[in-house]
Amino acid sequence: MAGRLYGIGVGPGDPELITLKALRILQSVPVLAYQSAEEHSSVARAVIAPHLAGNQIEVGFHFPRAQNPELAKPLYDQAIAPITEYLEQGLDVAVICMGDPMFYGSFMYLFTRLSDRFHTEIVPGISSPMASAAALGVPLSYRNDIFSVLSATLPIEVLETQLLNADAAAIIKLSKHFHKVRSLLEKLNLLDHAQYIERATMSDQKIIAIADVDAESVPYFSLILVPTKIQF
Amino acid sequence: MAGRLYGIGVGPGDPELITLKALRILQSVPVLAYQSAEEHSSVARAVIAPHLAGNQIEVGFHFPRAQNPELAKPLYDQAIAPITEYLEQGLDVAVICMGDPMFYGSFMYLFTRLSDRFHTEIVPGISSPMASAAALGVPLSYRNDIFSVLSATLPIEVLETQLLNADAAAIIKLSKHFHKVRSLLEKLNLLDHAQYIERATMSDQKIIAIADVDAESVPYFSLILVPTKIQF
Repeated sequence: MAGRLYGIGVGPGDPELITLKALRILQSVPVLAYQSAEEHSSVARAVIAPHLAGNQIEVGFHFPRAQNPELAKPLYDQAIAPITEYLEQGLDVAVICMGDPMFYGSFMYLFTRLSDRFHTEIVPGISSPMASAAALGVPLSYRNDIFSVLSATLPIEVLETQLLNADAAAIIKLSKHFHKVRSLLEKLNLLDHAQYIERATMSDQKIIAIADVDAESVPYFSLILVPTKIQF
Repeated sequence: MAGRLYGIGVGPGDPELITLKALRILQSVPVLAYQSAEEHSSVARAVIAPHLAGNQIEVGFHFPRAQNPELAKPLYDQAIAPITEYLEQGLDVAVICMGDPMFYGSFMYLFTRLSDRFHTEIVPGISSPMASAAALGVPLSYRNDIFSVLSATLPIEVLETQLLNADAAAIIKLSKHFHKVRSLLEKLNLLDHAQYIERATMSDQKIIAIADVDAESVPYFSLILVPTKIQF
């Protein structure tokens, strides 16, 4: 009998912000898998490290960052081959990822390739917009608010239209696009209202006024929240 | 010394989908508080029931559903008076709410009233869009997708514009607005692509084809996901 595939969201970074269900599965499966580039260790692996006994098989896999997803597809197939083998051998595999597996998560590449062949269960995780609102102490959206998640990689005109049409937003994937986003927030008079946070809930979390952020050193795990303006 | 206020997201309904941090605080505070209308017991209280020893003070409070939030403000102040008293007595109070406290959560009314007077900590929770994507087995948004949360209470023209301008969406607060939303999805050729779920992750969760949903009996805990169309 084939193994089960689990897609486990480990949340934003604080090891205490994983769910009881994630913990139970992580501690009981024979195989753990996570995305791990050659030169970096896995951030998701570090989040769950305090919860592991160290007696499980661990598999790292690497998805190349491809400009053209079509060209990358065979490389993704190749990357998950070891996971497929363990499942075929009848071993359950838990793939861990930061935040939530189905919400801007790399698990989706595995899901689309494996869920028709193997019994698959997803365990949702705390996503960074909610974790950041909690860490910042900022009510994010309420009542009939329109809330949007926007990628900073989008053209500035698109970001502007979206921000004007939403009541609240989270702007993700800032990194080298931070300067563009900051200029836009300034233009829209949102510089004082919006909030920036790095590595929310991690031990080295930083909250910095947007005007003071060094645009050259914005990490991947950062975002800007534009909270609701409703008074309540 | 005054007590601490905790805003605790208990997640979407499955008692196993609360975080380790939420569990630790829930089990250690002397006072638990939750929104509870006179005729209904608290859904959030039911979610954490398996985790409680039954030796804590419990406070129900009730926010009237007001058409005019301005008129409701004094009623909200009155509703949270018992919580304020416990905090003033030096007792820590954990306010529990479904999903995430800062994301369409009623905790925000308490936060804006109490966080300047009492030390306040927020524990984020799994929100229903992520829980629903997991339960449905549907990748929700990816890469540079624009993801929006839309309230079904919005005018149909607004919903249409927003759906056309987003790559993925969650439509919440369906209840009596379901019929309007279904008509719109049909017009936009999204009826087969979108997914409906009731009480995601609860023991009586239901997944129903949108065409088959009885528009007269759509519960508060239901939503429609319009997932990304990216192929990956």
